[in-house]
Amino acid sequence: MTTVKLLDDAEAEAIPAVKAVFDDIRAVRKSDFVNNFWRGLANDPALLRRTWEGLKAVMMAEGALDPLVREMIYIAVSTANGCTYCVHSHTAAAKAKGMTDAQHGELLAVIGLAGQTNHLVTAMQIPVDPEFDAGRR
Amino acid sequence: MTTVKLLDDAEAEAIPAVKAVFDDIRAVRKSDFVNNFWRGLANDPALLRRTWEGLKAVMMAEGALDPLVREMIYIAVSTANGCTYCVHSHTAAAKAKGMTDAQHGELLAVIGLAGQTNHLVTAMQIPVDPEFDAGRR
Amino acid sequence: MTTVKLLDDAEAEAIPAVKAVFDDIRAVRKSDFVNNFWRGLANDPALLRRTWEGLKAVMMAEGALDPLVREMIYIAVSTANGCTYCVHSHTAAAKAKGMTDAQHGELLAVIGLAGQTNHLVTAMQIPVDPEFDAGRR
Amino acid sequence: MTTVKLLDDAEAEAIPAVKAVFDDIRAVRKSDFVNNFWRGLANDPALLRRTWEGLKAVMMAEGALDPLVREMIYIAVSTANGCTYCVHSHTAAAKAKGMTDAQHGELLAVIGLAGQTNHLVTAMQIPVDPEFDAGRR
Amino acid sequence: MTTVKLLDDAEAEAIPAVKAVFDDIRAVRKSDFVNNFWRGLANDPALLRRTWEGLKAVMMAEGALDPLVREMIYIAVSTANGCTYCVHSHTAAAKAKGMTDAQHGELLAVIGLAGQTNHLVTAMQIPVDPEFDAGRR
Amino acid sequence: MTTVKLLDDAEAEAIPAVKAVFDDIRAVRKSDFVNNFWRGLANDPALLRRTWEGLKAVMMAEGALDPLVREMIYIAVSTANGCTYCVHSHTAAAKAKGMTDAQHGELLAVIGLAGQTNHLVTAMQIPVDPEFDAGRR
Repeated sequence: MTTVKLLDDAEAEAIPAVKAVFDDIRAVRKSDFVNNFWRGLANDPALLRRTWEGLKAVMMAEGALDPLVREMIYIAVSTANGCTYCVHSHTAAAKAKGMTDAQHGELLAVIGLAGQTNHLVTAMQIPVDPEFDAGRR
Repeated sequence: MTTVKLLDDAEAEAIPAVKAVFDDIRAVRKSDFVNNFWRGLANDPALLRRTWEGLKAVMMAEGALDPLVREMIYIAVSTANGCTYCVHSHTAAAKAKGMTDAQHGELLAVIGLAGQTNHLVTAMQIPVDPEFDAGRR
Repeated sequence: MTTVKLLDDAEAEAIPAVKAVFDDIRAVRKSDFVNNFWRGLANDPALLRRTWEGLKAVMMAEGALDPLVREMIYIAVSTANGCTYCVHSHTAAAKAKGMTDAQHGELLAVIGLAGQTNHLVTAMQIPVDPEFDAGRR
Repeated sequence: MTTVKLLDDAEAEAIPAVKAVFDDIRAVRKSDFVNNFWRGLANDPALLRRTWEGLKAVMMAEGALDPLVREMIYIAVSTANGCTYCVHSHTAAAKAKGMTDAQHGELLAVIGLAGQTNHLVTAMQIPVDPEFDAGRR
Repeated sequence: MTTVKLLDDAEAEAIPAVKAVFDDIRAVRKSDFVNNFWRGLANDPALLRRTWEGLKAVMMAEGALDPLVREMIYIAVSTANGCTYCVHSHTAAAKAKGMTDAQHGELLAVIGLAGQTNHLVTAMQIPVDPEFDAGRR
Repeated sequence: MTTVKLLDDAEAEAIPAVKAVFDDIRAVRKSDFVNNFWRGLANDPALLRRTWEGLKAVMMAEGALDPLVREMIYIAVSTANGCTYCVHSHTAAAKAKGMTDAQHGELLAVIGLAGQTNHLVTAMQIPVDPEFDAGRR
């Protein structure tokens, strides 16, 4: 059950602004598969385009971080935000980019530890040590 | 303002179970600096010890993930959880481990994008595509 | 699967304090439909009554905000809190109050943008500009 | 810095609906101290009254849970929600109701453990065991 | 204390890609004031530009939702996410766009009610009523 | 659908480090039932062992808080974090430890109230009263 309609291929083809994005998704990913997230966003073609352009710029462009590292960061945020769909889709993406079981296990361990210490810090209301000030660097 | 007392060095020295952990923190980190988080946890020596042992096992042991990558994952979780102290302390740790400004910028971009798409997915209640099923791999 | 029993109509009828609230829900909404939320709360008649009275006061009374705007604010909070049921029930309510597809698309866009900038701000730990101080107004 | 004005005693006295609630807060708590939360809510006398009535019903009425236990549950929720003010005010309330240092330490340990396992479960997307179904009881 | 440097006007002027965005912010807003959020993002000119373009598209373009309504939705998300800076900046923006005290009070009441019912629903794990299915509409 | 494999008994038996923990879970709980959480963690035997040791230390050791109170605190955190599995498993655990319907109803009421006031406080950005300072005690 969704709160918006998920556009199937025929419906997407019928809207040029949606078709253009779906074509680009397929070309960039070299796959015919367009996952449900984009089919939901397709109800608002401008939002669809902006979101896809943002994703390409952040997750696919050449950069200083390895693409697999970016996926693991994505999983970390999605977990803390409790986003089931995002945890699944980005874990699948990380595995497709070569994440090993050992790396996955360590990712889970870091996420769990951060969850624990985040809660401990907040419950104790620990003040930031002045030594952490980035301005000093 | 905290909800627990932050133990200073004299108070920590006076409790053997706390002194042992503080000594280990200083030895492992090769630094005299013990940050406020540990000074708050020191009110409960068993919790202090367990938390420090957990941190060593997850963040400092040899493993499949680069220590800097682990710090960036930690920052990602801490940001989504809104933990000011943790964002500061682990950003400082990441910088100490060599995070460049370009890497930091990309980390922020991924965190921001994940925050955006997490919200979009939840508002649309997108169902998980069966293609993401880990069981198929 | 729930953690409490959902009271059916016969069970609700049998508890006068629950029956009174269910009758009022049906009368106020001019509909026989009582959704699952109230059937769960009915296990604690006092909590049921207080919650329903709160909802009537906030969402149904005459006021300065349009009822549809109130529903959109509700959806925004529920999304950020990751509450699947609440996103569904209040999106349905917003549609019943006339939310158009264009309005829904813009609502999603604002929610997504806020999610993104919330994360960016927290990751950078931006200090509040003194210009934003409400006390100055 | 706040987003609303905090009403001082003179301003509160000048609004009968606010004065009535402030008088009741002082009478019920047997203290002249009215904390900032109520001074902010006082900008909307109806919201102030409803919130205070809700607090009295949930936190102060006779019931099945010890008042100190209720405060600890309140701290747990407030920590997970990252509410600095609420963590401080309810930790102070719990101490006023007799929370010992040992109890506080255990409360922190449970909150931290829950934070950790919540994150682990979400990252692994563990399905609920049918054995947990409340309907079976 | 921030985790990135906040660029002052001289530093921003020295980077053409940053200067271009700051000039546009000032032109669009008809004000010389550039708030700290943009000064932090300026460390990554591409992220700065994308974020500003996103904000213009979502918050400033003609559309189906009143600009004040969009600000109130923004405040709702920012509150649920616990983003202090965002609550302050968008409350200031809402007031600048004409939000009255009565509207602010109702906004707070809806946010608070949603926070309450979100938690109740999650604690009870209420299943979504089939009547809420958008696909039926 | 999960992001990791859930190890069945045969798979768990084949890994000595996993078998040892599963045996201990069964012995400590005096039950043959090993719930899915541990079957997912079993992919990383070290994480499995650390998490189980943490749980025993926090939830099962003699201490200052009643075991049922600890479960209720766990439910409170899990609810605020939106962890479906954790809400179910710890509500089942609380019922197994004797939580009555009346206690459950009050737990829900406190969780809901805290959710409401957490949001109200954050939206108003209420400053902490100096009277709450733990340092004064």
